[in-house]
Amino acid sequence: MSDRVVLAYSGGLDTSVAIGWIGEATGAEVIAVAVDVGQGGEDLETVRQRALDCGAVEAYVADARDEFASEYCMPALKANGLYMDSYPLVSAVSRPVIVKHLVKAAKQFGATTVAHGCTGKGNDQVRFEVGIQTLGPELKCIAPVRDLALTREKAITYAENNNLPIATTKKNPFSIDQNVWGRAVETGFLEDIWNAPTKDVYDYTDDPTFPPAADEVVITFEQGVPVALDGKPVTPLQAIQELNRRAGAQGVGRIDIVEDRLVGIKSREIYEAPGAMALIAAHKELENVTIEREQARFKKTVGQRWTELVYDGQWFSPLKKSLDVFIEDTQKYVNGDIRMELHAGRATVTGRRSSTGLYDFNLATYDEGDSFDQSNARGFIELFGMSSKVASRREQGLAEG
Amino acid sequence: MSDRVVLAYSGGLDTSVAIGWIGEATGAEVIAVAVDVGQGGEDLETVRQRALDCGAVEAYVADARDEFASEYCMPALKANGLYMDSYPLVSAVSRPVIVKHLVKAAKQFGATTVAHGCTGKGNDQVRFEVGIQTLGPELKCIAPVRDLALTREKAITYAENNNLPIATTKKNPFSIDQNVWGRAVETGFLEDIWNAPTKDVYDYTDDPTFPPAADEVVITFEQGVPVALDGKPVTPLQAIQELNRRAGAQGVGRIDIVEDRLVGIKSREIYEAPGAMALIAAHKELENVTIEREQARFKKTVGQRWTELVYDGQWFSPLKKSLDVFIEDTQKYVNGDIRMELHAGRATVTGRRSSTGLYDFNLATYDEGDSFDQSNARGFIELFGMSSKVASRREQGLAEG
Amino acid sequence: MSDRVVLAYSGGLDTSVAIGWIGEATGAEVIAVAVDVGQGGEDLETVRQRALDCGAVEAYVADARDEFASEYCMPALKANGLYMDSYPLVSAVSRPVIVKHLVKAAKQFGATTVAHGCTGKGNDQVRFEVGIQTLGPELKCIAPVRDLALTREKAITYAENNNLPIATTKKNPFSIDQNVWGRAVETGFLEDIWNAPTKDVYDYTDDPTFPPAADEVVITFEQGVPVALDGKPVTPLQAIQELNRRAGAQGVGRIDIVEDRLVGIKSREIYEAPGAMALIAAHKELENVTIEREQARFKKTVGQRWTELVYDGQWFSPLKKSLDVFIEDTQKYVNGDIRMELHAGRATVTGRRSSTGLYDFNLATYDEGDSFDQSNARGFIELFGMSSKVASRREQGLAEG
Amino acid sequence: MSDRVVLAYSGGLDTSVAIGWIGEATGAEVIAVAVDVGQGGEDLETVRQRALDCGAVEAYVADARDEFASEYCMPALKANGLYMDSYPLVSAVSRPVIVKHLVKAAKQFGATTVAHGCTGKGNDQVRFEVGIQTLGPELKCIAPVRDLALTREKAITYAENNNLPIATTKKNPFSIDQNVWGRAVETGFLEDIWNAPTKDVYDYTDDPTFPPAADEVVITFEQGVPVALDGKPVTPLQAIQELNRRAGAQGVGRIDIVEDRLVGIKSREIYEAPGAMALIAAHKELENVTIEREQARFKKTVGQRWTELVYDGQWFSPLKKSLDVFIEDTQKYVNGDIRMELHAGRATVTGRRSSTGLYDFNLATYDEGDSFDQSNARGFIELFGMSSKVASRREQGLAEG
Repeated sequence: MSDRVVLAYSGGLDTSVAIGWIGEATGAEVIAVAVDVGQGGEDLETVRQRALDCGAVEAYVADARDEFASEYCMPALKANGLYMDSYPLVSAVSRPVIVKHLVKAAKQFGATTVAHGCTGKGNDQVRFEVGIQTLGPELKCIAPVRDLALTREKAITYAENNNLPIATTKKNPFSIDQNVWGRAVETGFLEDIWNAPTKDVYDYTDDPTFPPAADEVVITFEQGVPVALDGKPVTPLQAIQELNRRAGAQGVGRIDIVEDRLVGIKSREIYEAPGAMALIAAHKELENVTIEREQARFKKTVGQRWTELVYDGQWFSPLKKSLDVFIEDTQKYVNGDIRMELHAGRATVTGRRSSTGLYDFNLATYDEGDSFDQSNARGFIELFGMSSKVASRREQGLAEG
Repeated sequence: MSDRVVLAYSGGLDTSVAIGWIGEATGAEVIAVAVDVGQGGEDLETVRQRALDCGAVEAYVADARDEFASEYCMPALKANGLYMDSYPLVSAVSRPVIVKHLVKAAKQFGATTVAHGCTGKGNDQVRFEVGIQTLGPELKCIAPVRDLALTREKAITYAENNNLPIATTKKNPFSIDQNVWGRAVETGFLEDIWNAPTKDVYDYTDDPTFPPAADEVVITFEQGVPVALDGKPVTPLQAIQELNRRAGAQGVGRIDIVEDRLVGIKSREIYEAPGAMALIAAHKELENVTIEREQARFKKTVGQRWTELVYDGQWFSPLKKSLDVFIEDTQKYVNGDIRMELHAGRATVTGRRSSTGLYDFNLATYDEGDSFDQSNARGFIELFGMSSKVASRREQGLAEG
Repeated sequence: MSDRVVLAYSGGLDTSVAIGWIGEATGAEVIAVAVDVGQGGEDLETVRQRALDCGAVEAYVADARDEFASEYCMPALKANGLYMDSYPLVSAVSRPVIVKHLVKAAKQFGATTVAHGCTGKGNDQVRFEVGIQTLGPELKCIAPVRDLALTREKAITYAENNNLPIATTKKNPFSIDQNVWGRAVETGFLEDIWNAPTKDVYDYTDDPTFPPAADEVVITFEQGVPVALDGKPVTPLQAIQELNRRAGAQGVGRIDIVEDRLVGIKSREIYEAPGAMALIAAHKELENVTIEREQARFKKTVGQRWTELVYDGQWFSPLKKSLDVFIEDTQKYVNGDIRMELHAGRATVTGRRSSTGLYDFNLATYDEGDSFDQSNARGFIELFGMSSKVASRREQGLAEG
Repeated sequence: MSDRVVLAYSGGLDTSVAIGWIGEATGAEVIAVAVDVGQGGEDLETVRQRALDCGAVEAYVADARDEFASEYCMPALKANGLYMDSYPLVSAVSRPVIVKHLVKAAKQFGATTVAHGCTGKGNDQVRFEVGIQTLGPELKCIAPVRDLALTREKAITYAENNNLPIATTKKNPFSIDQNVWGRAVETGFLEDIWNAPTKDVYDYTDDPTFPPAADEVVITFEQGVPVALDGKPVTPLQAIQELNRRAGAQGVGRIDIVEDRLVGIKSREIYEAPGAMALIAAHKELENVTIEREQARFKKTVGQRWTELVYDGQWFSPLKKSLDVFIEDTQKYVNGDIRMELHAGRATVTGRRSSTGLYDFNLATYDEGDSFDQSNARGFIELFGMSSKVASRREQGLAEG
C-alpha cells in the first residue's frame, strides 16, 4: 500500500492544488479532511466532492460546529481568553478541534503524515504541528506552502494545467481565517500599521458609526456557560450565532492590534468577534458578582497563562489541562442573568442578578438595613498597614540618621 | 498649647461641621486642609475662608493638580491600571497625594492627629490611614463619621444650630468623588444591581447614544507619557483635561461594575473617566508596538499587582515602589504616535507609529521584502513542542497498557 | 438553657483554667474539645476526665491523627508547602482540622460560641477565627487570653485557689505547638535573633553533629502520596511517623528563621519537622521526574499561593479549593520510588525510578541510542531568540544614532 | 582578507582540534578566545600559546574572574537564583560573560562568525547563540560538534594526524563545566537515574559523611552583596572563593537532580556549588530580616522568572533587565551580618543582625516591652475573613436549599 497523507482541506485553491502537489512531491495518496467550525461558505458535500475531483483518494468531512462551540469556545469564555487583553483566540481555539479530526482521520485511513496549508512565519503552523505531535506522536507533519514550495503563483498555474474544478481568480488582498467564534484578517495595506482598516476588511460586523436602534439582550448563564438568551434556551453554538448576528449588527467586536506572535515577530491583525466579545463582557461581569475576591484575583493570572498557552499552540499540554480544572472549579456558582445593551459598537452591561451571587445588599448599603459592623475597620487598618508602617519607620529613622 | 488635628476638608457640609464637632469631641484645635486634585467646584480661596468661618484655626490649601497628574495619574497610565480590568483607580490614586499634603500640614502646624471624612466600610479609610501611618507613623487618625458618630442628620442640625455658612440641603442621592482622573458614583438605587444607571448619574460624559461627529486625535507619547495632542505640546494635566473634554463629549469612559472592596464586600460602582480610558487604550497599543513579548507578558502580572496594591491603599509600600522601577524600565521605548477615533462611547486606535518600535515590516510582511527565514520553523516547532509530546507519549503508553 | 461555649482544650494549665474563667466571665457552660493531631503527651481519656474535673459540662475528644495526616498533611506535601521556602506549615495545617471538630462539637452540643487559647499577635487566632467564621458563620469567637485578660499569672492563682487537678509549675521558657507534621518553638531568648538555638529547644530531632550511621530509605509514592517505605505499605500517618523517627534520629528537619506573620510583624521561629522535610524533598524530586516542564513551572506559583493562603488562615477559602484541584491534577503521574540517604541533618535523594516518568534515557543520553535529532536546534534557537534579537537591534540602532 | 571566525576556546582537545577543523570546513581564519571565569586548570598564557600552536591566527585571553563574580554571580545571589529550587545556574551565568568577550573579540578582529563547542541537545548552545544574536545581531554562529560533525573520535584522529600539542587520552567518563560559582557534571552512568553518584564525581567538595570540626563564619552583606567574611573585607570574587574552600571542606553544596532542559528533555545533573549555596542560604535569611512581607512574596515570583530566563539563555533580554531593576530596588536595605555554621554538608544560619532590619523586638516579644496592641486583632480578623465568610454562607445556604 502507498504511503498516505491526510490533508487539512478548505476547499479553496491552495489546498485543492495541494492534493496533487503532495502526491507528486511525495508519491503518497492524499486524504482530504474538511472540518466545519462555522466558517460559512460552501456546504460540506460540495467540498467533499471537489476534493475527490482534485485527486484525493478519500475525503473526510465533519460538522464540528457544536463540538467546537461547546468544547473549545466555552473554555475560552470561562477563561475570559483575550490575548494581549484584546484577541479572543479566534484561530487559536479552532486549530485543536481541526487537529483532533486530522489525527482521527489519519488513524481511520492509515495515514503516516498530516499536511496543513500554513506558512512558516505564523502561529498556526505551531498550533497544528504541536497538536499533531501531541495527539499522534507517531505522525509526521508537512506543510506544502512552507516545505514543498507551493506558492500562490504555482498553484494557479497547476490548477489551470490540470483543469482542476476550482476558480483561479486573483488572490484576495487579505489573508482571512474565520469560524463561529470570530474572524481574522491580515496582510495587504494593513501591514503599514499607521493605516486605518477600510470598510471592506469587515464581514461579521456592520459599521458602528451608523447603528440601528439599541438592542437589549438578557443572557442567562449556568456554571459560566450561556444557556438562554432573553429567556429562550440556547446551546452554546446558538448563543454565539445569535449574538454574532445581533451584536454584529451593532458593530460590536471589531479589534485592531499589533500582536506578538509566537515565532518572535510583531504583526498587525484585525479581528471581528461580535458574539465572543459580547459573551466575554457579560461573563466577566457575572464573575464579578459571583466569584470571591482572592479567587478572582488569582483567576486573572490563571486566565492569562491559559490564554498564552492556547495562543502558543499548547491546547493539549499538561499545564493547559491543569489550568482547565482550576477554571472549571471557579465556575460552579457563575449562574444568573446579565442584561446588556448592544449599540454602536458597545456591549454594555446594565444589570445583573444571580441566586448564587456574593453581592450582599445588606453589607453593601449605606441605607437602612446595613449589617456591616464599622467598628472592625480600625483594627483591620492597623494590622493591614503594619508591615508597611514598620518599613516606613525604618526609612525615616535612617533618613534622620 | 492645645492638641491639634489636621482635617481633610472638602468645603462641603460634612467636613464643615466636622471642624466644630472634632473640637467639641476632642478639645483639639482643627486645621482644615483642602487639596485641589481637579475636582472642580469652588475655588480654593472660597474654601479656605469657609473653613476659617466654621472655626478652623488655620486653613491649608494646595493646588495639587499638576502634581497629581504627573506623579499619580501618569504612573497609573504606565501600569495600565484598571482594577478588575475596569476601574481606572480614580479615588485610589487621589488619596495618596491628599495624604502627602495632610502629613505636610500636620508637620507644619504641629498637629498630632489627622482626621478624614470616610465611613467604616469603604476603601478610602484604608487608603487614608495606611498612607498616614506610613508617611507619618507618629500621627494618630480619626474619622468623625466612623469614630465620632457624626451622621448626616446630626451634621444638618449642628450646622443650623451654629449658623455655619454652608447650605444644609437634602443629601444628594449619590455619594460622589471626583478629580481630573475621573469620577465615582455609588449608593442610592444603584445598590439594586439589576437597575441600570439613569442619565442623572453622569457628569463628565455626554450620552454616547447621540454623539456628535467622530473626533480624531493623535496622541504623542514619550516614555509612556502623553506629551502632545494633535502635535500641540501638553503637560500631563493638560492631556487629561483635553481628553476629558473631547472623549467626554463622545460618551467615552462610562464604567458600571460590581467591585470587590478591600474590606471584603462587593459593591456597585459607576465611574466616568473619559480622559483616563482614552489614554490607557492609546498607551496599551503603543506598548504593543514597542515592548518585547516576554517583557509585555510579565508586565501584565506586574501591572495587576500594582493595581491591586494601589486599590488596597498601599501606594507608599515598599513593594509598590519596586514595581514602579520595573514599570519605569519598560517605558524607555514607549515613544510615538497613536491615532485614535473618539465616537459614540468608543475610543478606537486606528494607527500607530514609533521610531523606537519593534514592529518590523520586513519580518511581518508576506509580500516582497520578506526577510523572515521560514526554514527555521520546523526545528523550532519540534523542540518547542517536545515536552508536551513526551508527556503525551506517556499518556498514550499508559492507555494502551 | 444556658448559653454554651465550646473550648479548644489542650489539657494544660491555661485551657484548664479557661473552663472556669469563661464560665465566670460569660455565665456560659463550657464544653471542652480535645483533638489528637499527633501532639503526643497524655491519652485522650485522661484529658477528657481532667476537663470534666475542671468544670466542663461536656468533653468531646477525637483521635484525628489519620484524618489530619491524610486530608491536611498530604495536600501540604503535594503543594510542597514551605512558607518562605522554609516552614512546612506545622501549626497552619493543624488549625483547620481542629476547627472542623470545634464546629462539629458546637453543633452537637448547641453552643453559640467557640473559644481558643491564642494571643492577639499571632497567626493562630486568625486561622481559628477565619476558619470558624467560614465553617460556622453563625458562631461567635472568644479568646480568653486576648479578650478576657487571662494571663499566665492569673491562671496559676486561679488553679491554686480552685484546687484544679493540674500542675502549676513555672512556665516553660518556650511557647510550643506540636503535631505529627512537626513542632514549633518560639519566644524566650530566641527573640534576640543573634542568639543561636540551644540544645534544649529540640525534641523531635537528635543533634545532627553526632549522627548514627547513615540510614537509607526507599519511599514509594502513588499520585503524590507516600504508600510504602522500603517496600512495606504504610498509611500517610505511618509514613510521617516512621520518617519522624528515622529522619529525626539523624537530625533532619531543623529550621530556624525570621518569619513574616500575617499580623504584620516579623518573628523568630524554630521548627522541627523531620518527616515532613524528608517527604517534601523526596516528593519534589519525584515531581522533577514526572511532571512536564511548564506544568512544573506554573505549579511553583500555585504552590506559593497555596502556602501563603494556608499560612494566612484561608484553608476553607474558595481560592484554596480551586488551587487544590489544580495541584491534584498535577499529581496524577507522580508515582514511583525515591531512594534517600538520611544522615547528619541531610535528607539526600540518591536515586529515583518511575513507570510514569518523563525522563527518557534515549533522549537524554549522549551515548549510543540517542534518539534526539540535533538538527532541530538551529531553527529553534533562531526563533526562540527572535524577539530579544529584534529588541537588541533597536537598542543598537538608537545607540548608533 | 579571509573570512574570520572567533572560537570559544577552552584549551582542551575538542576546541584545539576545532581550530583546524573549522579552517578546513569553512576556509576561514580562526581566532581563539579563552575567558577565565575561575574554572581553574592551566594559566591563560599556556592556553593562548596552545591556540596559536594549533593554528589560530590570533588568541584573545581575558581574566574575567572579578567581572564574572561581580556582574554575573552577584545578580544571581540577589535573585536567590535556584532553578527548580536547586540549581544555582552555574553554567547559565557564565555563558553571558563569555559571550560578551566573544562578541568583543569578533569586533576587535573583524570576525563575521562565532563558533562554540556545544552539542545540539543542551542548554548552552541556546545561551551562546541567543546571547550572540543579541549582542552582535550581525554575527553568524556555528557549532563544530553540532554543525560540522566534529565527534570525539574524529578529534582524536585529527590531533594525532596533525601532531597537535594536546593529549588525546580517553575521554573523561563525565562531561564537566566549572567556574567559580560552581561545577556541573553529567552523562555516563549517571544517565541511569536510579544510580547514586560515586565519589569520583566530586571535586569542589569533600565527603560530608566524614567532616572536619564545624566551621563558623560571619558573612557581612551590603545591599545584598557579601563585603566581609569574619569581619575581613572581601570582594565578591574573594567571598565566593573563600566560601568554596571552607564550605567545600564540609561537603556543602552537592546537588543531584533531574532537570528540565530548555530543549524539552529531562536530564540528570550533578552540581557542586559550596560557596554559592552557602551565600544564597545566608542571603535569603538576611532578606527575611530586612525585606517587607509583600515585597518578599512578590520577589519570589520575580526571582523565579529571573531564574527561568537566565537558565533559558535570556540574560540580555529586555525582561531580564527590567527584573534586575526590581530586584536591585529590593536590596537597598539588605545589610547586616549572618552567622552561619558550616558542617557535614549543612550551611546553617544561627544568627542574624542588621541595622536596617524590620524585626522589631518590641513588636515581637511576648515579654515585657511588648508594644503590639492586641485589641486590633478582632477587627482585623473580621474583615480579613469577610469575603470567605460570605462565600461560605452562600454555600451553606445552597446546601440547605
